[in-house]
Amino acid sequence: MPQTIEFFYDCASPYSYLAATQIAALAERHSAQLQWRPLALGGVFKATGNRMPATVPAKGKYMLKDLKLWAEHYAVPFQFPKIFPVNSLLVQRIACAVAETDRAAYTLAAMKAYWTQGADIQQVAVLQPLLRSLGLDAEALIAAAQSEKIKAQLKANTEEAVSRGVFGAPSCFVGETQFWGNDRLPLMEAFLMKSEPKSL
Amino acid sequence: MPQTIEFFYDCASPYSYLAATQIAALAERHSAQLQWRPLALGGVFKATGNRMPATVPAKGKYMLKDLKLWAEHYAVPFQFPKIFPVNSLLVQRIACAVAETDRAAYTLAAMKAYWTQGADIQQVAVLQPLLRSLGLDAEALIAAAQSEKIKAQLKANTEEAVSRGVFGAPSCFVGETQFWGNDRLPLMEAFLMKSEPKSL
Repeated sequence: MPQTIEFFYDCASPYSYLAATQIAALAERHSAQLQWRPLALGGVFKATGNRMPATVPAKGKYMLKDLKLWAEHYAVPFQFPKIFPVNSLLVQRIACAVAETDRAAYTLAAMKAYWTQGADIQQVAVLQPLLRSLGLDAEALIAAAQSEKIKAQLKANTEEAVSRGVFGAPSCFVGETQFWGNDRLPLMEAFLMKSEPKSL
Repeated sequence: MPQTIEFFYDCASPYSYLAATQIAALAERHSAQLQWRPLALGGVFKATGNRMPATVPAKGKYMLKDLKLWAEHYAVPFQFPKIFPVNSLLVQRIACAVAETDRAAYTLAAMKAYWTQGADIQQVAVLQPLLRSLGLDAEALIAAAQSEKIKAQLKANTEEAVSRGVFGAPSCFVGETQFWGNDRLPLMEAFLMKSEPKSL
């Protein structure tokens, strides 16, 4: 039985972006199934009383340097956007609306637009061409994102995550074992290895 | 020129304990000089407005499971103490009072007493035999810990750390590059490797 990694993320979260650049390769290294699970980080903060790191000024300053170090370590582009924070409800609802097989590509494209080019991913005018460039039906997906069904889906994902112990993003689960943060990827990888059937 | 790692810690902090079990080997792998630098985490929180993780209940619950996973990953003993949090002023002042060459051994002994056996490290009656078991002059060190000079030393360490951007423990510095948390040890190690002179 292959193991499953559930990857809860919000495109508005810089550590979600960093983890997203690594998670597929990590899953592949351990033949694990990967589920991309969008949530609304604002809703998580509201439900748990957690706050953005920058509410502690020294933590906010550190975060900027820390993000840069991680990006260099992963050798991925990163530039802190001028528009921050953003309301990620639209971008996350579209993530719920796209087919599961397109979700990784869409998520990475939206994250790269925001975290490497500073695009305003709150705007339909930004997300529409982005969806088209992936060969997706932009109009249908944007309409779906505004439907009650998809709004409820994002809310359900968020509530499920909170009920399972999530208070920030990214958060991964292997079974019910929770790994919070980009910085927990190595620990999750060690956990996956420990659980793998040993070759003789 | 060997690189230097400054390791700011508080024995009352569980992630300081976890990092302390790894930091000497990490420094040795890179021929880096290691400086054990006690601070008062309560003073850091007061100065920066940062708070203990458990002030967000979901974060507190996660922390207990996370600590266990790290301890298993490192293969070190760990048991969350019944007496928590503790006032760490005495144990940290003694860390300032001991000779630099004894500081690692004393710190690890105090951390193990608390984080693996639940000893009340607020008590002179606990710290006295601990110091003696290390062959140190317990009476002199406990007296020194209550002197104005040593109180000022711990305060100065704490203020220096805060002025350099510290808001939690453990916090390491390689030069002025800051690494917050046990979970940043792999990133710090990658940073040290990148800065090492390449062999031809």
